[in-house]
Amino acid sequence: MCPDKNARPNETAYNIVKSSQLEFLLSISVSDLGMRHWLGYEADMTKRISFFIAGTEGRARTGVISTPRGDIRTPAFMPVGTAATVKAMLPENVRATGADILLGNTYHLMLRPTAERIDRLGGLHKFMNWQAPILTDSGGFQVMSLASLRKMSEEGVRFKSHIDGSAHHLTPERSMEIQRLLGSDIVMAFDECTPFPADEATARASMELSMRWAQRSRDAFGDRPGHALFGIQQGSIYRDQRQESAEKLREIGFDGYAVGGLAVGEGQEQMFSVLDYAPEMLPAEKPRYLMGVGKPDDIVGAVERGIDMMDCVLPSRSGRTGQAFTRRGVVNIKNARHQDDPRPLDEECECPTCREYSRAYLHHVFRTGEIIASMLMTWHNLHYYQELMAGLRQAIVEGRLANFVADFHETRAEGDIEPL
Amino acid sequence: MCPDKNARPNETAYNIVKSSQLEFLLSISVSDLGMRHWLGYEADMTKRISFFIAGTEGRARTGVISTPRGDIRTPAFMPVGTAATVKAMLPENVRATGADILLGNTYHLMLRPTAERIDRLGGLHKFMNWQAPILTDSGGFQVMSLASLRKMSEEGVRFKSHIDGSAHHLTPERSMEIQRLLGSDIVMAFDECTPFPADEATARASMELSMRWAQRSRDAFGDRPGHALFGIQQGSIYRDQRQESAEKLREIGFDGYAVGGLAVGEGQEQMFSVLDYAPEMLPAEKPRYLMGVGKPDDIVGAVERGIDMMDCVLPSRSGRTGQAFTRRGVVNIKNARHQDDPRPLDEECECPTCREYSRAYLHHVFRTGEIIASMLMTWHNLHYYQELMAGLRQAIVEGRLANFVADFHETRAEGDIEPL
Repeated sequence: MCPDKNARPNETAYNIVKSSQLEFLLSISVSDLGMRHWLGYEADMTKRISFFIAGTEGRARTGVISTPRGDIRTPAFMPVGTAATVKAMLPENVRATGADILLGNTYHLMLRPTAERIDRLGGLHKFMNWQAPILTDSGGFQVMSLASLRKMSEEGVRFKSHIDGSAHHLTPERSMEIQRLLGSDIVMAFDECTPFPADEATARASMELSMRWAQRSRDAFGDRPGHALFGIQQGSIYRDQRQESAEKLREIGFDGYAVGGLAVGEGQEQMFSVLDYAPEMLPAEKPRYLMGVGKPDDIVGAVERGIDMMDCVLPSRSGRTGQAFTRRGVVNIKNARHQDDPRPLDEECECPTCREYSRAYLHHVFRTGEIIASMLMTWHNLHYYQELMAGLRQAIVEGRLANFVADFHETRAEGDIEPL
Repeated sequence: MCPDKNARPNETAYNIVKSSQLEFLLSISVSDLGMRHWLGYEADMTKRISFFIAGTEGRARTGVISTPRGDIRTPAFMPVGTAATVKAMLPENVRATGADILLGNTYHLMLRPTAERIDRLGGLHKFMNWQAPILTDSGGFQVMSLASLRKMSEEGVRFKSHIDGSAHHLTPERSMEIQRLLGSDIVMAFDECTPFPADEATARASMELSMRWAQRSRDAFGDRPGHALFGIQQGSIYRDQRQESAEKLREIGFDGYAVGGLAVGEGQEQMFSVLDYAPEMLPAEKPRYLMGVGKPDDIVGAVERGIDMMDCVLPSRSGRTGQAFTRRGVVNIKNARHQDDPRPLDEECECPTCREYSRAYLHHVFRTGEIIASMLMTWHNLHYYQELMAGLRQAIVEGRLANFVADFHETRAEGDIEPL
């Protein structure tokens, strides 16, 4: 089926993308081009971070965020490296799956090993051996979900560490300081992630606080060439509040904008209905980041709705609990049906797990509690996610996203291959 | 210091080693030559396993065991892949440390996933994605240390699985069958590992039983080109019993010989005093294998005493518990002294852990319980062990083992580098 006229690549946008960037954008895995920032490449941190849109289809966009530490192909999925490691993976292998950027968690790192220690050791990139870009969250979300004895005020949040009970005070200014000490390439403004559900008044108070904190984050961040600061839109499921938040953020001015307060229990339907309007309220020429999303079909739906960046622990966490993502849905490797199955998780997958190991082997090492089970399952899942992103990018450039999405849902609906 | 005349390379032995084998023997890591058996190489299983001695110094020897699945440089250290995985390592990375052969545990594999299942899935090499040689133990040792409700008889050992309580009967014939089903390249005779201490009568009865089982193992093994059967010498610390056992094994005839019943709690001094005579009772032209050894200084002492092969869980197990082996002794990465230390475990080590990660990072990921701690620490330890073996091999070929051993002890005695 031929895609309609409006869905064809945006020729004007193409013109502002250098041919090397287009090649990079379309590469499925990390090419030599993509690795140049990794091996022996010295980042020129005076270069400003920029965003080029290479193609659009409907509301979906594909492009490249260009940073001193390397290019980020969008839509981008960011694996989560909570405590300075993507669990069960060596960083070069995360990179090899096609990840251009990682997410690091400010809350975890400020507690252990501390931002000051990472700074003394040369920054997070050097510490964890990841030379490509890193985005750090502001710490706010995890303070609310993990810390004990939290006390919110206009100034910030006081809390006690869930590890050792030590007292901390996280404010917009302190969050900016921590993210600077970590050496984060993309810094997130400090906000309050409005819980769901929230009535209009609660949502408004929370959004307005986040907007005041957004201004303080901007002021504290200052001008740091080579680094970007992203603002975070709040407003829960209230369209007028989302609009108001977007306007306030535009007024302050950020290098990118996140849609916050989603993926917090509202369900896919409600999330998509917010994404049907919220991203377009944000500046079109800047990257739009949907925080903490998600399952593969969440990602596809978000990209269709104009999102450029996402992050989620799901591929790595599921890997450790025996769930593999495949084109045909989720495979639960614990299931006894796999114990004699010589086939890979996915016959068409090119990841090392699928090329070299059977379901029977994965079942065995998972059941015996071997570390290699987490290693191989995580690798496959991260590869699956990055392959999905590459497919989305290519489909948008070629103006066939609608077909790609239809195929995606159809193949998943078939379910896993029949047992032998 | 010039080594003495007797310590020079054995010129005659050199002549029977092909130049490609000598090159392989002297390579520190896995060269292209060493990888040829790994990538796309089809093993010709009609080829007999042979052993060439390339050089000797005192009682120490270096050489190559040539098998259809690849050459094994001796003295060889075999990492242990208990449940079809060297814990926390991908097999290609175990190979890259310089390991030419792995050890698999019959006891674990017969219980889970079972030898019959591994056979149906194409054998252990394919199952675990390890294309180089595999040696399997007979299962006897671990029945005694792990299983419950053991009942010994002339015929074999009945026991209940430590996993699910299922009943099993391990005999010489069944052990040979399991090791055949696994596809093991080097099969160990079924024996009773005489506990330590054992009085003379107990040791004798145990040794004599093991010798009857050795004959039954030999009979059951049959003639299997491409595969080797090793006999196991017993006799505890009693020289006459060791002699008698060696004679009985020679009479039966094996492709290699293990010194059994050591590294079972007797201590290094007593082990070395047995190794001062026991290996030389075994045929000089066949490989000699010391089972379950050991710490780096155990290995050096065993090689000096004529041992060609060893295996131990120590480098991988210690890695998981935060102990790193270095030229300067053991580093306990848990120790707070490392938390701000930007230096690698060992400045001179070429492993990925030492090239890319600081002690501070290893300390952090170990303390936070991250899987990457086990991965990186194990990789370093396996690399250290293989580098030690490569150093021993090269020293023997070049007739400077005595100097090498003196340096080894001297550097260790210096202890770890000073804290910063």
